[in-house]
Amino acid sequence: MPEDFRSIPGGVTAPPGFRAGSTSAGIKAEAGARDVAMLAADQRCTAAGTFTTSRAPAAPVLLCKEHLLATGGYAQALVMNSGNANCSNGERGMLDARRMAELAARKLGISPQDVLVSSTGIIGRPLPMEKIERGIATIELTPDGGHLFTLGIMTTDTRPKEIAIEFEIEGKTVRLGGTTKGAGMIYPNMATMLCYLTTNAALDTAFQQEVLRRAVNDSFNMICVDGDMSTNDTVLLFANGLAGNAPLTADAPGASVFEAALRHVTRYLAREMARDGEGATKLIEVVVRGARTDADARRAARSLTISPILRCAIYGEDPNWGRVVSTLGACGADMLHERLDVDFGEVPIVRGGVAADFTNEAAKAVLARSEFTIFVDLHVGFYSATAWGCDMTHGYIDENATYHR
Amino acid sequence: MPEDFRSIPGGVTAPPGFRAGSTSAGIKAEAGARDVAMLAADQRCTAAGTFTTSRAPAAPVLLCKEHLLATGGYAQALVMNSGNANCSNGERGMLDARRMAELAARKLGISPQDVLVSSTGIIGRPLPMEKIERGIATIELTPDGGHLFTLGIMTTDTRPKEIAIEFEIEGKTVRLGGTTKGAGMIYPNMATMLCYLTTNAALDTAFQQEVLRRAVNDSFNMICVDGDMSTNDTVLLFANGLAGNAPLTADAPGASVFEAALRHVTRYLAREMARDGEGATKLIEVVVRGARTDADARRAARSLTISPILRCAIYGEDPNWGRVVSTLGACGADMLHERLDVDFGEVPIVRGGVAADFTNEAAKAVLARSEFTIFVDLHVGFYSATAWGCDMTHGYIDENATYHR
Repeated sequence: MPEDFRSIPGGVTAPPGFRAGSTSAGIKAEAGARDVAMLAADQRCTAAGTFTTSRAPAAPVLLCKEHLLATGGYAQALVMNSGNANCSNGERGMLDARRMAELAARKLGISPQDVLVSSTGIIGRPLPMEKIERGIATIELTPDGGHLFTLGIMTTDTRPKEIAIEFEIEGKTVRLGGTTKGAGMIYPNMATMLCYLTTNAALDTAFQQEVLRRAVNDSFNMICVDGDMSTNDTVLLFANGLAGNAPLTADAPGASVFEAALRHVTRYLAREMARDGEGATKLIEVVVRGARTDADARRAARSLTISPILRCAIYGEDPNWGRVVSTLGACGADMLHERLDVDFGEVPIVRGGVAADFTNEAAKAVLARSEFTIFVDLHVGFYSATAWGCDMTHGYIDENATYHR
Repeated sequence: MPEDFRSIPGGVTAPPGFRAGSTSAGIKAEAGARDVAMLAADQRCTAAGTFTTSRAPAAPVLLCKEHLLATGGYAQALVMNSGNANCSNGERGMLDARRMAELAARKLGISPQDVLVSSTGIIGRPLPMEKIERGIATIELTPDGGHLFTLGIMTTDTRPKEIAIEFEIEGKTVRLGGTTKGAGMIYPNMATMLCYLTTNAALDTAFQQEVLRRAVNDSFNMICVDGDMSTNDTVLLFANGLAGNAPLTADAPGASVFEAALRHVTRYLAREMARDGEGATKLIEVVVRGARTDADARRAARSLTISPILRCAIYGEDPNWGRVVSTLGACGADMLHERLDVDFGEVPIVRGGVAADFTNEAAKAVLARSEFTIFVDLHVGFYSATAWGCDMTHGYIDENATYHR
């Protein structure tokens, strides 16, 4: 971590002026599991979001977009439930999402348009609105409720994922907190990726949306297959301005510091999601260099985190590098077979498209680690990209063969 | 099967004028496993091929293209080995592929350019040429050697896949035989798909290439991910003209009969490959209707055969239809959530984008079958497509975590 980003506790309630909490409303099957969560600012925030591009988006995604468009990029609270995605529920789904915003708004004494909504869980079952209504009424929002909020948004995650950092902009102390859920991120159709970020920095709304888009593109979007995202994926950033800085625009001196902080937080959370992938035993980082275009670099890096046969080989700690070559060859990125270099960690594996001089033992030793990097140099251009994934295991099959029953 | 296509034994040697065989040359680790195979016609054939579009194609693929280009669409024999893909071997790989053609040509007394070559197996290890030389010298080619040929091309396949049919064109009796290998077809990076087809029909070379391309597009290409094909995928059709018909062109009266026969054979072999997918317990057919374009129909149908979470759910016989909706939403095909209809076999699952009136038991009963169809109607156009796949199981993980060691 750069030294000017100090790690602090508190997650999404680390920045002053935010309260959060969660409760068990009985939506999830497991007794006592937290499944309704809320995050609220003491005053209206600038707010930015990025959402799934699915052609079958869930109702809360449509509602978030509607509210952010209507307010011009402002919001004050977020209410969400886990255990039910509120997707493929037709008109009733939209009515239920609106009702969630209304119930939260009434509790907080604010406008329903200033409330954003998320859902995650099973598709195609109507929301149990009585339980949700009771849950929203019950939730206690506190200035140190960030961790309870994180517990409320989890589904198949095996551990909470949260972070908060502190740094200075224009002499003001700025805090940035974040939390995320999603354990099936590599194939996130089921385990929707949700991420909530808070800051006390003052941000210009256009700058806020653009900087969030860029940070998401290099973090969460590098652990997703483009064409395989969830119906509910949502990333939201709330900024309440309490730090007292002049609202940051793209050309402000503090803009680059804030962007670096946001990239640090989103990258941390993205890596933690990949590490906690369903059934995962290893975090795989892929660094591609020498691509002809930015799109090629991203495509090549992602392709290796997606390939089931490569991910199975890594689970088996089998240095079957032919699967790296074949996946790269098929991914569509421009390449020349005879220029390809591949390394597993510090071990050179392929040089100029043929096997390098390495021992099977050295390659296996890298794959045996809980976290390692595959380096690829295509040597056809100057673009690079980094992606994260995990191995594919029996645990993944178990989790996904029986999730719904 | 249409009644005018009579099923006959013999595989690729069912048409008169073809001989084939295989032998164990010690390339595969298992003692006695057949790993070198040859197919030869008694005279020069018109020949057409379709090949992987990987940017890292194996040497034999490059050599096949070179030979077919040089001869203008003629060939007389095929020599292949399993156990080694001859890919990522640099210049030596091309020299070895040429040497295989030369050895086979010398054995048969024909020109090396009239020999096509395939390899399948591990990537990045030089071919053991002494073993291959001995293998080619040893192989006995016989007019009833089609089944032995099929046994020689198999890798992780659990059963041989072959077919032959007989039908009439212009009063002449035509036979068409075929065999294929490939058990990891859904993610075929490793388990290269190879298919060899023979006929005694006389075919115009341009017609032959075009009709093969179309048949492959609706069969083998519908069990592959476009962007995830092997470095070695190859489909070859040899036609020796012994039936005595006038060479078929696109507008000949017999052209449509031959095309229907070729589609029948390739579709049969493609389905059998999906059924024999690594670790598979079920054959899944997906029929998409009402797509706006042909590309959308194919994309939507394929997306369902590719989705790991859907395939895991099917393995668990879990009617989690939300995964169908979410995969379709993410696949990029034009759709409207509220028009979507989905059926599992005879059971309506989704109507107008929301749950249809069905019982979990009825849906589970369909998924419990060893073979069933998922019907999707997007209701936004008039294009349809069919794709085939299989469930994703613990067997797949086992096979791919340890294949290379």
